[in-house]
Amino acid sequence: MMETIRVALIGAGRIGHEHARNLASFPSVQVVVVCDPLIEAAKMVRPLARALEISESPDEAFARSDVDAVVVCTPTDTHADMIERAAKSKKAVFCEKPVALELERTQKALEVVHANGVPFQIGFQRRFDAGYAEAKRRIASGTLGRIDQFRAVGRDPGPPPKEYLAKSGGIFIDQAIHEFDLARFLVGEVTEVYSWGAARFSEDAATLGDADTATTLLRFKNGAIGVIENSRRAVYGYDIVTEIFGSNGKIIVQAEPKTPIRHYSESGYQMDHYHFFMDRFGPAFRAELESFFRCVTDGVTPSPDAFDALESLRIAVAATKSWKTGQPVKIGR
Amino acid sequence: MMETIRVALIGAGRIGHEHARNLASFPSVQVVVVCDPLIEAAKMVRPLARALEISESPDEAFARSDVDAVVVCTPTDTHADMIERAAKSKKAVFCEKPVALELERTQKALEVVHANGVPFQIGFQRRFDAGYAEAKRRIASGTLGRIDQFRAVGRDPGPPPKEYLAKSGGIFIDQAIHEFDLARFLVGEVTEVYSWGAARFSEDAATLGDADTATTLLRFKNGAIGVIENSRRAVYGYDIVTEIFGSNGKIIVQAEPKTPIRHYSESGYQMDHYHFFMDRFGPAFRAELESFFRCVTDGVTPSPDAFDALESLRIAVAATKSWKTGQPVKIGR
Amino acid sequence: MMETIRVALIGAGRIGHEHARNLASFPSVQVVVVCDPLIEAAKMVRPLARALEISESPDEAFARSDVDAVVVCTPTDTHADMIERAAKSKKAVFCEKPVALELERTQKALEVVHANGVPFQIGFQRRFDAGYAEAKRRIASGTLGRIDQFRAVGRDPGPPPKEYLAKSGGIFIDQAIHEFDLARFLVGEVTEVYSWGAARFSEDAATLGDADTATTLLRFKNGAIGVIENSRRAVYGYDIVTEIFGSNGKIIVQAEPKTPIRHYSESGYQMDHYHFFMDRFGPAFRAELESFFRCVTDGVTPSPDAFDALESLRIAVAATKSWKTGQPVKIGR
Amino acid sequence: MMETIRVALIGAGRIGHEHARNLASFPSVQVVVVCDPLIEAAKMVRPLARALEISESPDEAFARSDVDAVVVCTPTDTHADMIERAAKSKKAVFCEKPVALELERTQKALEVVHANGVPFQIGFQRRFDAGYAEAKRRIASGTLGRIDQFRAVGRDPGPPPKEYLAKSGGIFIDQAIHEFDLARFLVGEVTEVYSWGAARFSEDAATLGDADTATTLLRFKNGAIGVIENSRRAVYGYDIVTEIFGSNGKIIVQAEPKTPIRHYSESGYQMDHYHFFMDRFGPAFRAELESFFRCVTDGVTPSPDAFDALESLRIAVAATKSWKTGQPVKIGR
Repeated sequence: MMETIRVALIGAGRIGHEHARNLASFPSVQVVVVCDPLIEAAKMVRPLARALEISESPDEAFARSDVDAVVVCTPTDTHADMIERAAKSKKAVFCEKPVALELERTQKALEVVHANGVPFQIGFQRRFDAGYAEAKRRIASGTLGRIDQFRAVGRDPGPPPKEYLAKSGGIFIDQAIHEFDLARFLVGEVTEVYSWGAARFSEDAATLGDADTATTLLRFKNGAIGVIENSRRAVYGYDIVTEIFGSNGKIIVQAEPKTPIRHYSESGYQMDHYHFFMDRFGPAFRAELESFFRCVTDGVTPSPDAFDALESLRIAVAATKSWKTGQPVKIGR
Repeated sequence: MMETIRVALIGAGRIGHEHARNLASFPSVQVVVVCDPLIEAAKMVRPLARALEISESPDEAFARSDVDAVVVCTPTDTHADMIERAAKSKKAVFCEKPVALELERTQKALEVVHANGVPFQIGFQRRFDAGYAEAKRRIASGTLGRIDQFRAVGRDPGPPPKEYLAKSGGIFIDQAIHEFDLARFLVGEVTEVYSWGAARFSEDAATLGDADTATTLLRFKNGAIGVIENSRRAVYGYDIVTEIFGSNGKIIVQAEPKTPIRHYSESGYQMDHYHFFMDRFGPAFRAELESFFRCVTDGVTPSPDAFDALESLRIAVAATKSWKTGQPVKIGR
Repeated sequence: MMETIRVALIGAGRIGHEHARNLASFPSVQVVVVCDPLIEAAKMVRPLARALEISESPDEAFARSDVDAVVVCTPTDTHADMIERAAKSKKAVFCEKPVALELERTQKALEVVHANGVPFQIGFQRRFDAGYAEAKRRIASGTLGRIDQFRAVGRDPGPPPKEYLAKSGGIFIDQAIHEFDLARFLVGEVTEVYSWGAARFSEDAATLGDADTATTLLRFKNGAIGVIENSRRAVYGYDIVTEIFGSNGKIIVQAEPKTPIRHYSESGYQMDHYHFFMDRFGPAFRAELESFFRCVTDGVTPSPDAFDALESLRIAVAATKSWKTGQPVKIGR
Repeated sequence: MMETIRVALIGAGRIGHEHARNLASFPSVQVVVVCDPLIEAAKMVRPLARALEISESPDEAFARSDVDAVVVCTPTDTHADMIERAAKSKKAVFCEKPVALELERTQKALEVVHANGVPFQIGFQRRFDAGYAEAKRRIASGTLGRIDQFRAVGRDPGPPPKEYLAKSGGIFIDQAIHEFDLARFLVGEVTEVYSWGAARFSEDAATLGDADTATTLLRFKNGAIGVIENSRRAVYGYDIVTEIFGSNGKIIVQAEPKTPIRHYSESGYQMDHYHFFMDRFGPAFRAELESFFRCVTDGVTPSPDAFDALESLRIAVAATKSWKTGQPVKIGR
C-alpha cells in the first residue's frame, strides 16, 4: 500500500515553480506547505503544487512533525543552512545544487546530514535525463569497453545578470559543475585538471575577474582524458553535448531537434534547437524528484548524494585554481 | 482570478490513466469523480487524478450540478451515448475519438451537442504535438506556399487483439482516421479517395475481412494530391511521419530519436525510435486537455470539434468503400 | 592481364560530358572516337575523354572494327536506331534511358540486341548508387523479411523547357520511370497501377496535356503495395527518397546533407540538400559504366538490361493510361 | 586555350595510386613519367595515371626539361630532398605532408623552394573537402562573428604498424598535424599549446614512448581557445569532426552517414560511418591537385603553402614538448 509522503517546498522562485508542478503530479506526494519570504510568490506556487498551506518562513517546514521531506530551492547562499536545519529536524532533503560555494561549508553541511542519517539528494538533474541515464547504463554494462576520452560541452543561451555572477563562484563552480558531475557520473573520479578561461564578450565577467569562456582538461583515475568546454553565451540556444569514447565505441548524448520538424526551403533544410535548460531537462527535473521520493519510500540511499555534491565542487575549485595559476592542479582528498 | 473547473473522468482504462495524470497537473482543474463500472479501476485512477470521489456509474457525473465538464474515455460504442447525456446535462465534453463508427450515429450525437450549446472537443491529440502544431502555423502563415502534395504514414507496433479488431470498424476507420485528420488539419478538405488494402500478416484481419496494410490516395479540394500509408505492425516501433510539400518548400514532421543518444560501434551508429503512441504523444495528450479547459474557461469554441470528428470519419468510410469496390469514391456532403 | 576496351562515345551533350570524364578514369578503357554532329561539342569533350579522334557522324563508331563498345547519349528519339546499328555491328552497347518512348519501338530494338547477342545495358544509374545498391543487398539477403510497402519520391528542381516536355512522353514516362525502375529493382514486378496527376504550376504541362504533379499506386506481384510521388519542381532541390517497409524493418534511402556541414544560428540549425541529379548521382554514373565494362570484359550479362528497360516503360505507359482514364490498369505481358 | 601541364609522379605507393587516378582525370594534365624504385609498383600505377613512361629513379623527373611539375608521394624522410631537387630543377612541386619531421629541415627545404621561386603546395587535403571549404567561406565572410572556441577530433580506425610508428615523429607530428592545420585554416595562428597524452591500448606506442591518445589545448592569437582530441584507434571507423563556435553561431563539419541509407529494425535505426581517410577525403584529394594545377596554370601562388607546412609542424613540435614536460608551451617564431 502506497503511503503519502508529506513535503515542504522551500523557495517559490523559478525552479520552485518547476518543482511544484512536478510534486503535484506524484500521487504519493502531498505538499503540505510552500515557504517563501515573498508570500505572494508562495501564493502563486500553492495551486501548482496543490499545496495545503503557505508560510513566509521555512521554520514551519522544520517544526512541523507532519513534514517528511523538504525540497530546497532557496538562494544558493542559504542552501547549507537549510540542509542542516532539515537534517536536524530529521527530514529527508532534496536540495538544488550547490550545497555551498566553498568546500569547507559544503563538507560541514554534509556531515550534519550524515550525522542525522537523513536521505539527501543533490539536484544534478541531468543524471535523470533519458539520454544520460541510458549512456550510464550502457557504459556500466561494458558496452563501450575501456573509456579513453570524454568530452562535454555546456553553453548557456546568455550570461546571467551581474548580481548573480558576482555571487556565483565563477564559471567553473557555477556552470561547469554540471559537466564535472557528468564526467564523474559517466567516467569516474577525476585526479587532475588544467583550465584556460577568457572573458571574450561579457564585461561583467571581465570586471569580476571571471571568465565567460573556458576549456578544462580532466585526467581521470582510470587514465582517460577528458575535456570540457563552456561558454556563457550561445546565440543558437542551450548547447549541451556529451561524448564518451571507449575501446568498443562512442556514445554521444545530444538532444535535437527540439521540435520534431524538418523544414526544407531554398536555403536547405532546417531544424530547431533547445533554448532553455528547463525545456531541455524538464522531464529530468521530474524524474530526479520521482527517484528521490522512491528512495525515501523504499529506504534506499538517494543518488547523486552528498559525496557527489562535494566531489564535483572539488573539481570546480581545482579548475578555478588552475585557470588562475596557469598550472595543472591535482585533486587530492 | 482563475476559477476551478470541476471535472468528471468517465472511464478508468489505459487512456483514462493518462488523462487522470494530466488532469491532476492542471492547477485550475479539480476532478470531483472518477466513474468506472470496474470500481477497482476507478480506485486505482483516483490518486492519479487527485480525485475527490469514485463511482461505478457515469450517472453521478451527469446528475451532479457541481460537475462542469466530463472527459469521456469509455469504450468506443458508448461514446455517442455519453456525449449526448453530457450535452443534455449541460456539461462541456471532451471525448476520445471516435464519436461512433457510423456517420449517422456520429451526426446524431453531434446534433445533440449543438442543440445544447456545450463546448465539445474530440481527442485528435496529434494536433497538439509540438511538431504538428508548428507545421500548421507555418502552413497557415503561407511559408510553404501552395500545398501540392501530402503524405502521412501511420504504422502501429503491432495489431490489436482480435476482439478489438472485430469492433474497430476496420483499418481505415480505426487507424487511418488519425492520418485523415492530419490531412484535413494541415491541407484542407478531401473530395475523393482511392484505397488499396491487403491482409499481409494478420490472420485476424484476414478472417474479419479487414486489411492490415493499406494505402490511400486523397484528392484535396484545393487540388493537392495526398497519400496515406498504414500498417498494423512495424517491428521497429510506432512509425508516424507526415510530409507536406508546397510551392515554397517541404515540411516533414517526424520524431526521432526517442532517446537523445547516438551510439557508434563497429556496425555504424544507431539511434532508437518511439515504440508507443503514449510515449510519442504524451505531451500532446496533456496539451489537448489543457487547450480544452482553456477554451471552456475563456468561452472559446474548442477544436478539433464536432465537424472535424464527422469529416474525418466521412473520409474513412469512403476509403473503406473504395477498398471494397476497387473504385475511387467521391466525398459528398 | 587486363585488356583495353575500345569505346566510341556517341553524343557530346550534357550527359556525354559526364560519361567522357568517367571513361577517361578507367585504365582499361580507351575512347577511340567521340561522335557528335556538332563537331565543336565533340571537340570540347575529346580531352575530357582523352579520346583519340572525333567525328561528326556515328557511322564512324559502327564502321570501325577497332571499336568494341559504344556509349550512346544522343537525343532520346535516336536511341533505338543507335542501339540497333551498334548491335548489328556487334558492339557492346551502353545506352541512356529510355530506349524509346513507345513499347513497340523499344521491343523491336531489344530484339535486335538479342538477335545479335551483344551485351546491352540501360542507363538506370540509381541502381549503382551506394545507397540503392546496399538496400538491394539487404533486401536480397532477407534482412527486411517480406516486403509489404514501398514508397519512392522523385522531385526535380524545376521543369524542363517546353520543347523537351513536348517530346518527353509525359511525366510518367520521362520522370517517374526512374522510380518505377527502383520499384522493380528493390521489390519486384508490378501487376497493377493507379495514377492521379495534375498540372499545378506548369503552364507548359497544362498546355501539353501533361501533369507536373503525380502520385501512383503500385501493386506488386508479391502482394506489396507501393506509392510513387512525383513533382517537376521542388524549390529546395533534387528530392529523391525511397522507403522499403518489410516484416523485419524498414530501409530509407536518402542522401543528405550534400555538404558535411551543420550550421547553428539563432534560427536553429541548417544543412544543405542536393540540387542536381548529376551531383546526387555523380558516383553512380561512374559506377554504372564501370560495371558495364567489367561485364563486357568478364563475359557476364550486364544489368539493368533490355528487359528492365522494357518493363519500366510498361509501367510508365500503364500509369499514363490510368491517369487519363481514371481507372486502375493491370499490367499484362 | 588550355595548355597541357606535364607531370612526373614520384612514388607509386598507396597515396600514389590515389593521385595517379586523379591525375588521369584532369584533361589539362599529362603524366609523362611515374618514378618508383620498385619498378613493379610504377608499372601498376602507369595505366591509372595514363602515364607515358616509368622509371626506377626520380632523377628522370628532375632531369627532363619536358616535366613542368612533380607530385611527390615518396616516404616521408625523402620529402625534403625531393622538394629541394624539384625546386632547383624549376619544377612546380606538390608534396604530401610533412616536408620533414624537424622544423630545421622543413625550413631549409622551404628556403630552397623560395629561392627558386617555384610554386609549392603541401598535401593538407582536408582544406579542399566540401565541408571544410564551405566552413572557411562562412567564417571568412563573418557569418560566425568572432570565433571563441574551436574543437577538432581526429581518430583513426587503427594504429599504423610499429615500423611506421617508429619513424612517424609521434602522434602530434604524424596525426594531430591535420587538426593543427584545420585550426590555423579555420581560426588563425596558435600562440600556445598544452597537451596530455597516454598510451592506452597500443603496446607499440608505449614501447616507443609515444601516445595513442592525446588531447591538446590551443590558444589562438585572437584569444579563442581550442581543443584537439586524437586517438590512434576507433572501432567504428575514421572519426573526423570539427566544430567552430563564434559569437553568431556554430558550425560543425562532420561527414555521415557514408552510405545514404537508414535502416530501422527492432533495435532502433542505424546508419554507417566512414572507415578510411581515402574514402572520406577522396574528393578532397582530387580537389587539392586540381587547385594546384589551376594555380600553376594561372600563375597564382598555391595554398596551403610552405608557411602552412612549417607552422602546423611548429604547433605539433610544441604539443609534443608540452606533453613531455607537462607544461604549457608558447609558440614563438
